[in-house]
Amino acid sequence: MLVEMGKQARAAARKLGRASSEQKNAALLCLAEALLSSSAEILAANAEDLAAARQAGLSAAMLDRLMLNPERLQGMSADLRRVAELPDPIGERFDQTTLPNGMSLYKQRVPLGVLAVIYEARPNVTIDVAGLALKTGNAIILRGGSETLGSNRVLVGLARQALQECGLPVHAIQLIDNPDRSLVMQLLQMYEDVDMLIPRGGEALHRFCRENSRIPVITGGIGICHLFVDESANLEESLKVIHNAKTQRPTVCNALDTVLVHRKAAGEFLPRLVAELEKAGVSFRADASALPYLQSSDSNGELPASVLPAGPQDFDTEWLSLVLGLKVVDSLDEALQHIEAHSTGHSDGILTSSQANAQRFLAEVDSAAVYVNASTRFTDGAQFGLGAEVAVSTQRLHARGPMGLRELTTYKWVAVGDYHVRP
Amino acid sequence: MLVEMGKQARAAARKLGRASSEQKNAALLCLAEALLSSSAEILAANAEDLAAARQAGLSAAMLDRLMLNPERLQGMSADLRRVAELPDPIGERFDQTTLPNGMSLYKQRVPLGVLAVIYEARPNVTIDVAGLALKTGNAIILRGGSETLGSNRVLVGLARQALQECGLPVHAIQLIDNPDRSLVMQLLQMYEDVDMLIPRGGEALHRFCRENSRIPVITGGIGICHLFVDESANLEESLKVIHNAKTQRPTVCNALDTVLVHRKAAGEFLPRLVAELEKAGVSFRADASALPYLQSSDSNGELPASVLPAGPQDFDTEWLSLVLGLKVVDSLDEALQHIEAHSTGHSDGILTSSQANAQRFLAEVDSAAVYVNASTRFTDGAQFGLGAEVAVSTQRLHARGPMGLRELTTYKWVAVGDYHVRP
Repeated sequence: MLVEMGKQARAAARKLGRASSEQKNAALLCLAEALLSSSAEILAANAEDLAAARQAGLSAAMLDRLMLNPERLQGMSADLRRVAELPDPIGERFDQTTLPNGMSLYKQRVPLGVLAVIYEARPNVTIDVAGLALKTGNAIILRGGSETLGSNRVLVGLARQALQECGLPVHAIQLIDNPDRSLVMQLLQMYEDVDMLIPRGGEALHRFCRENSRIPVITGGIGICHLFVDESANLEESLKVIHNAKTQRPTVCNALDTVLVHRKAAGEFLPRLVAELEKAGVSFRADASALPYLQSSDSNGELPASVLPAGPQDFDTEWLSLVLGLKVVDSLDEALQHIEAHSTGHSDGILTSSQANAQRFLAEVDSAAVYVNASTRFTDGAQFGLGAEVAVSTQRLHARGPMGLRELTTYKWVAVGDYHVRP
Repeated sequence: MLVEMGKQARAAARKLGRASSEQKNAALLCLAEALLSSSAEILAANAEDLAAARQAGLSAAMLDRLMLNPERLQGMSADLRRVAELPDPIGERFDQTTLPNGMSLYKQRVPLGVLAVIYEARPNVTIDVAGLALKTGNAIILRGGSETLGSNRVLVGLARQALQECGLPVHAIQLIDNPDRSLVMQLLQMYEDVDMLIPRGGEALHRFCRENSRIPVITGGIGICHLFVDESANLEESLKVIHNAKTQRPTVCNALDTVLVHRKAAGEFLPRLVAELEKAGVSFRADASALPYLQSSDSNGELPASVLPAGPQDFDTEWLSLVLGLKVVDSLDEALQHIEAHSTGHSDGILTSSQANAQRFLAEVDSAAVYVNASTRFTDGAQFGLGAEVAVSTQRLHARGPMGLRELTTYKWVAVGDYHVRP
């Protein structure tokens, strides 16, 4: 069944890849409309999913991710309209040149082909991914979580209807409509008919895909993110940046996990940082190097209630919550070493007034996004001006950091000659 | 042992990635010199490999690929000097922009990290790959064929000596110095310390890597290449292009495998094509659609000696020799269908005077390189002006077609703010 799905996706991708921007945008708008006009049907299916999930004892957080309501449907619909308005990357010519022999040579952007996406809970991902794939002329095979199968069936049905109404191949969007887990393993073997695998989920899912997939995998979305407060940093401003990076949305991958503070700034900065951020509900895991700066001299060296001494795994933990690691370093070198040892290569930054230290940090920290004097929370397709985001890659091949529409494409070389032969 | 090698490669890659262009070029020139000054030592080791290979009964073609001589060493040395002269892609900034919030954002080119290369016979690949990796700041782990282990030991030793003399980490170039085949399987699992795997060899090696590697694999180098002679083609010139594409170097992946001829041109063109190319030693596999145009009317419909009727697998065979498939089609559509069904996505072209047909061909054939009025033999890093080539990719992620220095790099996003926070 999956093999057949792969063949159908491949055939659909060939047709969709040649569709005009107008046709693809029409289908996007048609689907945007259907989300609103068919909202009763969607919400009814979603209510059944939710009831079953409650019965199965899923957590409140999971239930929230699974839940659709009129407002969320409107958001999904608006997102599709926004994607329709973005420029179509397909067909773009670049690296154009005329070779010394007179032959014209350029690269032309084409769809990747067939994408498979494995994800959990959130049914909005279904529409999100379908929209981005449709815009870029890629066929998709979706494997959502079993708890959202009912919602996904309706959503994918609407998407396929939109394709059909606009004269596009319905097999460009397919759902693995069966919760059997062995199908995931089957899917991962289908490298001849699937060009890219995007897992959207936790570290276990990414590792499973990396270890079992014969399809190229985009891994990412795991961020142990650092900010280093250099001795020359503006401490007042640094406090605001760290506050933002830690608390603005603590549950996501670009949220801050660890603050490294230069020893010369630690005495002034660390107590202020703790006092300020604990007001926002942050608690701290302080390395032994940081503890002396946090023990009050007037209460027998006790730590503030929000501060715990860091355990051995704490600097290798992606907190995804209002917890922040603290460590004092003696030098930029020591900060760089800590980041090299503990960063997941997602987003790391320096807060400094020193041009030289900023340059060294940018040169030596090799993460998908490196920052000078800015919050790690900017690592995001929309913030970086990509207009859309399908994933944040922390691997090195193909694309790194936020992946937008262009990162769902590849290119072909086009050479136009006058009956040229190779000497 | 391999795990240790991976860790050492990772550490060396970090250092090499920060080396200056001057340092890297100095090491390239130092190695170029060493190939000449140590030629006696290299040739002695190679002579032993050759003697063992002869004893083991390797084919003349294999022995030729294995063989080094002073002239080949000079060629390898000159290639290294040429790589030293190419611009260094590392550090390049691109996609530079200032975001609406005033933050400066750009991408900066960085090395991929650690590359593993699995190859057969030819010891010149050792130096070739070492040079390209060194230039791009990547560490490499090499796994050559067991028959060339003696030669490779000497060559890798010289490369490491060159690194050392120029203050670069010797573990940036490592050889798996053990013919045990189970080590390849171990290597393929090391995704944490190897960023890209490049198999250089036949289809079996590529398939083995695709099916067993947890490291992202660059597959490629398999070309079933087509030229379609449209009814409007200049037949005189088309003959020259086909002659070039088939005979200029028939053993390589961009050599022509199949000629498709529009029925309206077949009567005039096919007999001339066969008459002309058989002089160059080409023999033909003609589809039933082509046979009537080749049967002489004056000898009981016999075929020329160089022509055999095509068997069922012939249009799915990469010939790598002076054999050419022939087929007559009724339309551009039929040509496109044949290519879609049989091409490996390497290099395919149309010979035509019709702008409309050329455009349709370019739009609908999705191979790594597509041609109008040119030989497929141009699909090559040097011919495309890349200056060097590490592989020709026929997969879709990361890079497609000829891969030069830039394709051995990735990028990081660099954002420089003034204590910017995300609203």
